Amino acid sequence: MDTALDIEKYMHGLGRRARDAAKTLARASTKAKDAALQAMAAHLEEEAEALVAANTRDMDAGRARDLAPALLDRLELTPARIRSMAEGLRQVAALADPIGEITDLRYRPSGIQVGKMRVPLGVVGIIYESRPNVTADAAGLCLKAGNATILRGGSEALHSNQAIAVSIRAGLQAAGLPADAVQVVETTERNAVGALLRMAEYVDVIVPRGGKSLVARVTQEARVPIIKHLDGVCHVYIDAAADHEKAVAIAVNAKTQRYGTCNTLETLLVERSRAEEILPPIAARYAAAGVEMRGCESTCALVPQAVPASEADWYEEYLAPIVSLRVVDGYDEAVAHISQYGSQHTDAIVTENVSRARQFMIDVDSSSVMVNASTRFADGFEYGLGAEIGISTGKIHARGPVGIEGLSSQKFVVFGDGHVRT
Amino acid sequence: MDTALDIEKYMHGLGRRARDAAKTLARASTKAKDAALQAMAAHLEEEAEALVAANTRDMDAGRARDLAPALLDRLELTPARIRSMAEGLRQVAALADPIGEITDLRYRPSGIQVGKMRVPLGVVGIIYESRPNVTADAAGLCLKAGNATILRGGSEALHSNQAIAVSIRAGLQAAGLPADAVQVVETTERNAVGALLRMAEYVDVIVPRGGKSLVARVTQEARVPIIKHLDGVCHVYIDAAADHEKAVAIAVNAKTQRYGTCNTLETLLVERSRAEEILPPIAARYAAAGVEMRGCESTCALVPQAVPASEADWYEEYLAPIVSLRVVDGYDEAVAHISQYGSQHTDAIVTENVSRARQFMIDVDSSSVMVNASTRFADGFEYGLGAEIGISTGKIHARGPVGIEGLSSQKFVVFGDGHVRT
Repeated sequence: MDTALDIEKYMHGLGRRARDAAKTLARASTKAKDAALQAMAAHLEEEAEALVAANTRDMDAGRARDLAPALLDRLELTPARIRSMAEGLRQVAALADPIGEITDLRYRPSGIQVGKMRVPLGVVGIIYESRPNVTADAAGLCLKAGNATILRGGSEALHSNQAIAVSIRAGLQAAGLPADAVQVVETTERNAVGALLRMAEYVDVIVPRGGKSLVARVTQEARVPIIKHLDGVCHVYIDAAADHEKAVAIAVNAKTQRYGTCNTLETLLVERSRAEEILPPIAARYAAAGVEMRGCESTCALVPQAVPASEADWYEEYLAPIVSLRVVDGYDEAVAHISQYGSQHTDAIVTENVSRARQFMIDVDSSSVMVNASTRFADGFEYGLGAEIGISTGKIHARGPVGIEGLSSQKFVVFGDGHVRT
Repeated sequence: MDTALDIEKYMHGLGRRARDAAKTLARASTKAKDAALQAMAAHLEEEAEALVAANTRDMDAGRARDLAPALLDRLELTPARIRSMAEGLRQVAALADPIGEITDLRYRPSGIQVGKMRVPLGVVGIIYESRPNVTADAAGLCLKAGNATILRGGSEALHSNQAIAVSIRAGLQAAGLPADAVQVVETTERNAVGALLRMAEYVDVIVPRGGKSLVARVTQEARVPIIKHLDGVCHVYIDAAADHEKAVAIAVNAKTQRYGTCNTLETLLVERSRAEEILPPIAARYAAAGVEMRGCESTCALVPQAVPASEADWYEEYLAPIVSLRVVDGYDEAVAHISQYGSQHTDAIVTENVSRARQFMIDVDSSSVMVNASTRFADGFEYGLGAEIGISTGKIHARGPVGIEGLSSQKFVVFGDGHVRT
């Protein structure tokens, strides 16, 4: 495939086959979809050796290209990781199937009965980087929602992804479903992504899973709707009426339970009247955990370990053991800070004051808003969605963790008995 | 405003003010929003004379530019139409306010409580043609959903739209809400639309209301999510098990009750075993109503008034007293026809067979799927949404008639009691 035209043709071929497969999937029974998920899981485990061999090719090439150790770690497929992929597919099989569910079926004055039926989106394009387990996770969740997928992973994981796709497609066929319900883009040409982003006749939605530059490119080029995940600049605001114990526990957990996740706390806001009492013990815990602290002037006066924060710090998603700390003059300043510097991902208030808690729920326009809980809970599993394809920071279609429901839509259904409009 | 840069600056100014106003609106009480809607309605009626005068300027200019009579008709504001605009706003005021509604609040095994809260989208950009009543209708519905709007109507209606905006903004101020919650783009430069479609920092969603070329341009240029409405190539399929009376009533009503609406029947499909019995009486009713018929070979053999349909006819949204008629060899061929030629808007089956009715609901991937009812019911009022901003034929966010719910979204809310993740 050397010309741009060939790539376009190749991608349109994938698109056509995905569209056809999606029509079959939309009508597939829950039983068939779950059987496919189980068969995929079994096949992945049976083929573990072949998967590790394919992955070794990617790992070797990655080492030869001097990929960063963190990237190599994400790329690696171990027997344990393969089992965990299979387990993930079995968990998706165990989830309830929302497709076909009819809700809100009500009689109207005209006599017709109107309701909504949950339906698949159709074809989902997923563009991701490095981690090959996304191939199985994303394909499995999309399948359960009745969607066909076109998966475009990172070029460094191509052999791993192709090997995983073999098992997935074998699982689909074992259950009598079309193998083309899951297709992996087998060219590493950059143009292939461009074609995927533009072929609105074959793709209903694109889910980019990756860093800022990937999401920026997708946003710029897509002619297809996208469910996107931008930064997670998450805040915890410790209110004047906060409970001391809860405030410390949440501030520590939200920052230190894991550093590289998008729902990790990046900026802690503390109401001035509580700063002297609450900041030092939290700072001690951060220091003990090796978390670098960057603070406003008031913070630095109270916390000897803190260095001065710059304006840029408030916008930063560190994804690292670094936290920014700011003392605010009350609730309004906290909300204004979150509104200006936040990324509408996840923000929490710690307070015992019910009126302020209720107000925070309304005032903060983020995909998850929390009262007295750690931002780390913003996650499909924790929310009971079963699994997630990502966390949407967009405002259309789906906000927050996106599970099966976010990968589906609702159409109107109308039942009459010969009813006509007058 | 003569340079592209000036226009961009002007549009960004509108965007910034809309974004600020949206923050206030998101927190506005139902009482304040409803008071504003009532005040807008009263103001429109009080200023009817000024509105008619402004509209006369547009009408005179339209006549001087030789606008088609149908366009002039849509452009005209009469006292009756002004009353009807005001009435529409009062009806929106009477609708329930879904904003702030918390649903599905459930305890999770971790002890946190997770639910969803309905929230506004933020800033809605509406691009429309001709009919100035859209200014009031769209602004009213968006306001109820807590959104700020930027309205860009057709250049031929500019004075009318500006005059309506004066009343709307007066109504907002009377209720203590920011006037900038509703802004009309006051330049007729085409570049203004381009700027609106690109300013993702200020606009959360664009709703194009207009013909194919407008929607095509918006789809091509937008860097902002869109809720779009493409063609309404609607079908009624008369199944082998159809009731004769219901079939005739629905086929006639769906086509002849109104010709220019998107939910009007364009292609009637009849199962072969019923064609001889059912097509002639329907054709007689169409002929009596002056509806031109274009049929497949079998149809033409049964219906003397029919002329042969071309392949292009099956794709056509006539929006006129024309219908295409096709005899199909059973259910599968009907579904295949709808899938190939339809526009995923509204399609109906007429049948007494419950299994086929259930199957049709699943097989047909349209925003509204009906059993034994006229496609003309696909409408926000008929569905009980209260009002609609349009009918979405997209698959993301909202399908079918889009009312207040489609102009809002849901965020996750989490309540804990100091809960942290382990």
